[in-house]
Amino acid sequence: MKAIKLSERQERIVELVKEHEPITSENLAGHLGVTRAALRPDLAILTMMEVLEAKPKVGYIYSHKPSYSFLYDYINNIEVKSIMSSPIMVEENTTVYDAILHLFLNDVGTIFVHNEHILVGAVSRKDFLKFAMGGTDMHKVPVGIIMTRMPNIVYVKKEDPAYLAAKKIIEHEVDSLPVVEKTSENGKEELKIIGKVSKTNITRLFVKMGENK
Amino acid sequence: MKAIKLSERQERIVELVKEHEPITSENLAGHLGVTRAALRPDLAILTMMEVLEAKPKVGYIYSHKPSYSFLYDYINNIEVKSIMSSPIMVEENTTVYDAILHLFLNDVGTIFVHNEHILVGAVSRKDFLKFAMGGTDMHKVPVGIIMTRMPNIVYVKKEDPAYLAAKKIIEHEVDSLPVVEKTSENGKEELKIIGKVSKTNITRLFVKMGENK
Repeated sequence: MKAIKLSERQERIVELVKEHEPITSENLAGHLGVTRAALRPDLAILTMMEVLEAKPKVGYIYSHKPSYSFLYDYINNIEVKSIMSSPIMVEENTTVYDAILHLFLNDVGTIFVHNEHILVGAVSRKDFLKFAMGGTDMHKVPVGIIMTRMPNIVYVKKEDPAYLAAKKIIEHEVDSLPVVEKTSENGKEELKIIGKVSKTNITRLFVKMGENK
Repeated sequence: MKAIKLSERQERIVELVKEHEPITSENLAGHLGVTRAALRPDLAILTMMEVLEAKPKVGYIYSHKPSYSFLYDYINNIEVKSIMSSPIMVEENTTVYDAILHLFLNDVGTIFVHNEHILVGAVSRKDFLKFAMGGTDMHKVPVGIIMTRMPNIVYVKKEDPAYLAAKKIIEHEVDSLPVVEKTSENGKEELKIIGKVSKTNITRLFVKMGENK
């Protein structure tokens, strides 16, 4: 899989380097029947893409690490704040039934539970379904009983890379993470919810990255 | 946001082009106090990255489309088959209760309904939760009653780009798509389920793309 399509000549250079490494630019030019100067742009591109490595006084060698670094840079420069969306929040004493209504009305997969915007818990579609399977009356149980409670909630900050959010989502097997800001009121450090990042946000970002514009 | 970090000189060239476009390579070389030949690799990289556009007999202009093309190529070369996972399937007469058990046991978000591997329907966590809200006995209703039925199911083929799968997921607001293969038995064309692609698969792919290896 290649990121930038190499030109035919660039492909040929890579083949020659693989075969003869280390090989000088003079030798490469000789093989290709062109001048050294004519090769310079291609060699610059190939070393910049880390397909080739230039060893001073030795020549070019094939770089055995694939050239993912540009992709790595690209992805790690996207911050959570540029892809996050609004969190849907309820208070701890909201009934499970009302919380599920919020879930449907806003078409989200996770409801965050807050106390004056401070994160106290999270409930997912899966948690709600598990509760519904039990047959207990949804109108009588507050969401605080079935939620995952802090400090057992994985979160990100808005300056974190979107990559980190995606990694936490996969590692912790959750659908959505709250985006928080640290505040210290009354001398106690707490987390204020300011957004959320879900698999939907990551998928939307992926679509945006793949758009041909 | 840049994909490849430009060198200081490349950044300077871009600034000069923005200011003076269209500008010839001679003029650029003059501004920078270097020879035209010395600029050639930088100009080759900048036009290849589509940061600049070279107009024959006019000079370089700044390309107003950002240089996403390499990213576009990269993403559109990833096929569904390289990221799909196994579909969890039940038959149409399975009870809603049993289907939800399958959902939990396999920790998936969508159950596909099949008839001898031919796709007939799909039920999501959201569909199940909506049903559970209604209070009807889950043991008595077959999943065929609540599923989304063909031909109302969006699907992909294993040779499709992962990008197309992500796009369909976002556009149709679903969590998961069946991956199908066309078969024509008894002269009738049908779709055999061979996999699935979900937001989880896309998120996992995004994490893999962002890994520094």
